[in-house]
Parts: sequence; structure tokens; C-alpha cells
Amino acid sequence: MKQIKVQLLLTGNELLNGDVVDTNSAMIARELAETGIEIKRKVTVSDDLSLLVAEIGQMSTAADVLIINGGLGPTTDDFTAQALAQAMNVPLAQHQQAYQHLVSWCQQRDTILNPANLKQALLPQGCDIIANRIGSAVGFKVRHNNCEIYCTPGVPAELKVMLEQQILPDFAEKTTGQDKTQITKFQIFGLGESKLQQLIHDELAPWPDDVELGFRAGDPLLELKLTTRSSAADAEKAQCITKLKALLGNHIVAEINGPPKSLAQHVLDRLTEKGQTLATAESCTGGLIASLLTQVPGSSQAFEAGFVTYSNDMKSQMLGVDPRILANHGAVSRETIQAMAEGALERSAADYVIAVSGVAGPGGGSKEKPVGTVWLAWGSKTDLKCHCFLIPGTRLAFQRYVAAIGLDLIRRSLNDCNDPANYLIERSFK
Amino acid sequence: MKQIKVQLLLTGNELLNGDVVDTNSAMIARELAETGIEIKRKVTVSDDLSLLVAEIGQMSTAADVLIINGGLGPTTDDFTAQALAQAMNVPLAQHQQAYQHLVSWCQQRDTILNPANLKQALLPQGCDIIANRIGSAVGFKVRHNNCEIYCTPGVPAELKVMLEQQILPDFAEKTTGQDKTQITKFQIFGLGESKLQQLIHDELAPWPDDVELGFRAGDPLLELKLTTRSSAADAEKAQCITKLKALLGNHIVAEINGPPKSLAQHVLDRLTEKGQTLATAESCTGGLIASLLTQVPGSSQAFEAGFVTYSNDMKSQMLGVDPRILANHGAVSRETIQAMAEGALERSAADYVIAVSGVAGPGGGSKEKPVGTVWLAWGSKTDLKCHCFLIPGTRLAFQRYVAAIGLDLIRRSLNDCNDPANYLIERSFK
Repeated sequence: MKQIKVQLLLTGNELLNGDVVDTNSAMIARELAETGIEIKRKVTVSDDLSLLVAEIGQMSTAADVLIINGGLGPTTDDFTAQALAQAMNVPLAQHQQAYQHLVSWCQQRDTILNPANLKQALLPQGCDIIANRIGSAVGFKVRHNNCEIYCTPGVPAELKVMLEQQILPDFAEKTTGQDKTQITKFQIFGLGESKLQQLIHDELAPWPDDVELGFRAGDPLLELKLTTRSSAADAEKAQCITKLKALLGNHIVAEINGPPKSLAQHVLDRLTEKGQTLATAESCTGGLIASLLTQVPGSSQAFEAGFVTYSNDMKSQMLGVDPRILANHGAVSRETIQAMAEGALERSAADYVIAVSGVAGPGGGSKEKPVGTVWLAWGSKTDLKCHCFLIPGTRLAFQRYVAAIGLDLIRRSLNDCNDPANYLIERSFK
Repeated sequence: MKQIKVQLLLTGNELLNGDVVDTNSAMIARELAETGIEIKRKVTVSDDLSLLVAEIGQMSTAADVLIINGGLGPTTDDFTAQALAQAMNVPLAQHQQAYQHLVSWCQQRDTILNPANLKQALLPQGCDIIANRIGSAVGFKVRHNNCEIYCTPGVPAELKVMLEQQILPDFAEKTTGQDKTQITKFQIFGLGESKLQQLIHDELAPWPDDVELGFRAGDPLLELKLTTRSSAADAEKAQCITKLKALLGNHIVAEINGPPKSLAQHVLDRLTEKGQTLATAESCTGGLIASLLTQVPGSSQAFEAGFVTYSNDMKSQMLGVDPRILANHGAVSRETIQAMAEGALERSAADYVIAVSGVAGPGGGSKEKPVGTVWLAWGSKTDLKCHCFLIPGTRLAFQRYVAAIGLDLIRRSLNDCNDPANYLIERSFK
């Protein structure tokens, strides 16, 4: 299969002055990757008519498909239609469908179609429109210099719908009859990207050429992607998946189709299935675990309460930790974390608990308990475990990773999983 | 002053396949903007030698300065030095300073200089190196086609140091004798970008042409930037600042030099100055306010405790809210939020409190209390205020904005500020 040459042209001063980080091109790339198409070149220019005209001329000669993003708005610095018309040497003309779209868009919003909006119906003569289900700016496409040119809006939500519902199906038509790209994705926790790569290299060699292996580093879940480009590789892929599952065990959080789920979502789903509840007792993560859980819609079904006990006094008062334990062993100790977990279970009447106490830094470290030391307790009243880890890094990175470990340990408990997590071995302390 | 034409060339498959969102070019743009330089064009190409060679040739002809980012690493898909050498038609040669840097870099890490690393000392003959204080890859610069070409590493932390310590001073030298760009920045909360723009347009017209006004939308703090490009405009700028302060009042959180501070940081700084402490009682924000506070190093000085009381039972048990109040008025009510705040103050012995209870959605709304309804209480035992807001949006956006409002209201209390916040008027409900 000959690879279609796709290039990307982005326009917008905000993309070049540092005000906005361009997330659209990553979105376009990911969507195209699902159909097996790679982008090799991308150009970003400021809102400048002559720059755009020159770029369109040059890129349409070099590529089979050119996707232009941005510059479709109603304001005077939106030039895409005008630039494309100039590059093609055709006039701008009011497009009937685009005009109708604007009229009904304004009607739905009880506003009057103003001259600025009307500009959005002035498109290069002869173009086809691409419907916009969300915003006022329609997309449009033309063929020029033997290149398909798609003009798309800069608003990410509008772009996404247009890509998924109209542009990708268009591409799929072009590749009809060719073998289809198939992707299987796993979410992984507790193994870094290079570690995972090494592990697969060492244990699963030789890896078949037909099954492309891809990694997307995540925070904190890593994505592992297996891509095949012909149905002839299906059996090989199935074998690879069986081997991967045996190798990675409970480091595989889930196989996903569709958008990835957070660790907190996985934990809450499992709790809800079981009709059980969770409480948190946090010192060094300061409410982050509770916050991650309650970001998930419907978390009130399974999340009971969070105790953010930052000072020693509060550990005693809110969770009933015996002040003598704190005096004798310190806040970062097995004895304290166990008492915090038991206190949280008792006072919330939840079935499960995650408790955390550590030294997030940058201050507060000592020789025996350096910055990065953290005790976690997790489980239920009848099966409560404690462990001490050493997790170096910045304060925020420490808090995020500790929160993720806490959630993963509860996920493992909920799945009655007994194979030890990699981080239990590697990050152990004391 | 003639604008220097700066273009940007980025290389890396990960920038085109959607695995990584390019944040480096926004960083470069912001750093250059401080010296008054704008980037007009940026090209991103995959790790492909011939593409790079062609692009370098074309861009160096068009620009005064070309910044190349990425492709300096030790692996076989890092081509920048090779591509530049080909484009300039010079050989690659081992650069003595680069070699020395690698040797000492390896020594410091107790590792052996391997052939892969050694590749990083092979640079286009005649180039000057740009020191890398952090990583193994030195940067380098050459002059070609009357264009200054800077090659910089893709690792953001390394790039940042190199820009600030070496490349920008280089640029500053080029513009010596010319008037200097001066920037004053303010952090603003509680006014959206368009609202702020309108307000300044309506109230402070005519705005002097010499004082450029810039906005950077933030989450949740907006940045307002006043730029002057000659000392002749200093007096005008001072006048503008006086007028802005009168117009915006306590919506101005701070004037900043250096990196922006979070709202939580501002609150903690003020508390620490006063030697006072804060507690939080959160329902719908689920620990987010506590988490934002405890992300700040040293927050233990001023943050006492957080109560995440998600269920009604826990509101009674953890905070002592009378169950009859909950039964009669519901969890989202003035009576409940006041009782939650009083309970948190009493049980934590903190001086100040933020309490939050609302309907984050997507479920749980009713006609009287639709999704987005939220009660906040804030202040001290002797000066506790309550207010109800309606904040539409997604669950996460709601949680973030409510957390920010809570922090801003406490900031205002700590500053004994009495002018009403814009959001107190606009978002009021009931």
C-alpha cells in the first residue's frame, strides 16, 4: 500500500507567540494514525495573507493531502478562505450551504447574522463544504495541484467532530479494498516506557515484524499499542497479546477501546460493581487522591470521605491516631500509617482505605527519612497492608506518583491480585 | 528598529504522530517575546535526513535567524548535526569542547563514554558550541546563507537553560544600542479575557499606541501584559498602570516579575506573613482545594487540615453538621455550608476556613438546585461569609473554578478587601 503524503498547515498568531500550545496537530495525528496514515511535515504560519498563499502553493505541490487548520473565524485576521482562493486563482463567492448553516446557527442562538459572520459564507468558488455540527464556521475542501485540501476550524471540539465524522470516513473511502489497520491498546501501570521496552525485548524476542509495537508515555498510565496493517497478521497479534498478558500480569490495568480511563475511574468502577466504598487518609498527598476520585462523575456512589491530616494534631483529632505513636515513631512510620488507615476505616465506615504519609519535600527530610520517603497503607479492615517506598523527584511529581501508587494498590486489592507490583520491589525502602 | 526574521525548525517523529504535544515552541516564542522578537513561521518535520537538509537550505535563505530544536540525541534517528553539515556542504568533525563536555558528563555519572554518546561530539566543521548545563548534548551555532543557525536540544529543561543563559544574551547583543523592550505583568482573577478587554476599551480609551496591551488566558489566573519598546513611553505606561489599578481593584492578584504564582501560593504567603492557618471543608470539590494548597512547598506552615465530606453522614460525623439541618435544607444550602465551615474551624482550630458544597454534575441537579449550583463559606470565626453561585460547565471545569473562587475569596479576606468581586455579582444565584 502506497502511503498517502499528508501535510499539515496551521495558521494563527497565537500558535507562534507562545500564548497557546498547539494541541490540534497532535489530535489530527492521532486520528490519522488510527487509519494508518502518518504526517511527515507540518508548517505553522502567523495570520498573514501572503505567507498563507505562498505556503498553500508550495505544500499542495508536495503533498497528496493538505489539511489546513485555523483561520476560518469571522474576524479580520482569519484569512484561510481568501488565501486558498488566491492560491487557486478563483474568486470568493457566497456558498449557499454555508450561508444556510449560518442562518440556522444564528436562529438557534436568537442572534442576528452580522456582516462579520457573513464573511464565513464567502468561500473559494467551487469548493465543497464540510459541515460543522458545533460552531458557526463550516469547513471546506477543494482539489488543487492534484492535492486534496481540507480547511478545518481551529476550535478543538469542532475540529474533532469534523475529523471523526467527515474527514476520516473520506480517507477510509480512498483506502477501500486495502487491508485495514487494526489497533489494540492496553493501559499499563508501574512500568516505565524504557523498562517495558527492555522487558519485551528480553522476554518476547523475536517479536514479529507485522505487529508494530507502540508506546505512549502517560501520567501515570502508559499506553501500549499493537498495530497490524493486514489481516494476515491477526494470528500473530493474538499470540503476542497472550504472551504480553503472561509477562505483564496485573501491570495491565485494562484493554481499552475508545478513550482511556483514569486509574481513579478503574478503582471506582470496581468498587461500584462490588457495591463497596472507599475512604482516604492523606498527609503528604494533601487531598490529591480524594480529588482524583471525585473528578469522576458518579464517584459519590463509592467514595465516602477524605481526611487530609496535614499536622500531627489533626492525625490524632481527625483519625484518632494515638499521640504516643506519633511521638515515638514519627508521622512517617508503619505504626502511624496503620493507625491512620484504621482510624479512617472506623470513622467513615467505608469498606476500603488508602492512607499516605511521607516527606514530599523539598524541606523536611532527614538521614533516616530522606525526601521521597513515604508509607502507604491500603486494603480493608480484615486485610490491611503497609509498605514504605522511596520516590525521588519534585514535590508535585512525588505527590502524583504516590497518589497513583495508592490507587493502583487498591485496584490490585479489589482484583484479589497476588503477583507483586514491580514498584513494590524497585521502590521499597526500609 | 528592523524586526529580525526568526524561523523555527522542529524535528522529531513524536511531534508529528500525536505522541507528544509540542510545548518547546511556545517556550521559545515566550522567551523571544521578552526581547521583542516575533516568530512568523515554524516548520516541523519527521526524523528524516533528506527532509531536514532541504528544510535547512530553504529556511536559512528566508530568515535572519533559524532556531533548530531536537535531533541532538545519541540515537540513530537524531540527524540535526549531519543534516546541517550536508546543507552547508562541510564535513562532520569531532569538536574538542563537545568531546570534553561528554567526557566530564560521563565522569560525573560514573558511566563510560560509549560510541552512541560519542556521536554527540561530531558536529559540522567550524561551528561554535552552546554549552548544555544539564544534559549530554551540547548545542551549536553556525552562520550559513547569511543566517544565524542555532541547534538546540529537544529536552525542555535543557532548552530553557540554553535559551535564557546563552541564546537570548546573544540576541540582546545584536540589539544593543536600540531601545529596550520593557514588560510589566499582572495576574488577574475573576474577569475573563474578553470582559477585561471590553472594560479597558470602554473605561480607559484612548489607550496610548506606545503601550502594547497583551493578555494570556490562564487557568484560573489571567495574565495582563504591558509592553513598551522605548523609554519615551515610560511615563505613559506609569499612567496606564495607575488607571488599571483603579479600574480593576482587587481583581489584580499581584504584579509579577519572574514566574507566575498560583492562587494557592498567594493565599499561603499571606497566611504565613500573618502567622495564621487555614482549614478546608469540601464536598463537591472533593479535596481539590486542599490538594492545590499542599502542592506548594512549605504549605504545612499554614495549612492545617482538609475535610472531604462527600456523603451527608460524613458531614455530620466529621464536621458535626446537625442531621436536622441536612434533612431540612439539603446538603447544598446556606445552613449546611455555614455549619460545615463552623465545624471545620472548631475541629481544626484553624484561623480561616474555606467550605464548599454544590452540584458538580453531570447528575444530581434539580429545578431549584440545577447542576452548577454551589454554596461557599469563607472567612474566620468572627467574620464568616456565605454566598451561592451558579457555575455552568463540565464537572472538572466546575470543580476547578469553584476551587479558584474559594481561594480568591480567602485571599480577599486576608487583604481586608471590601470591593465586591465581579464573580460575586455575575454568578450570584438565589
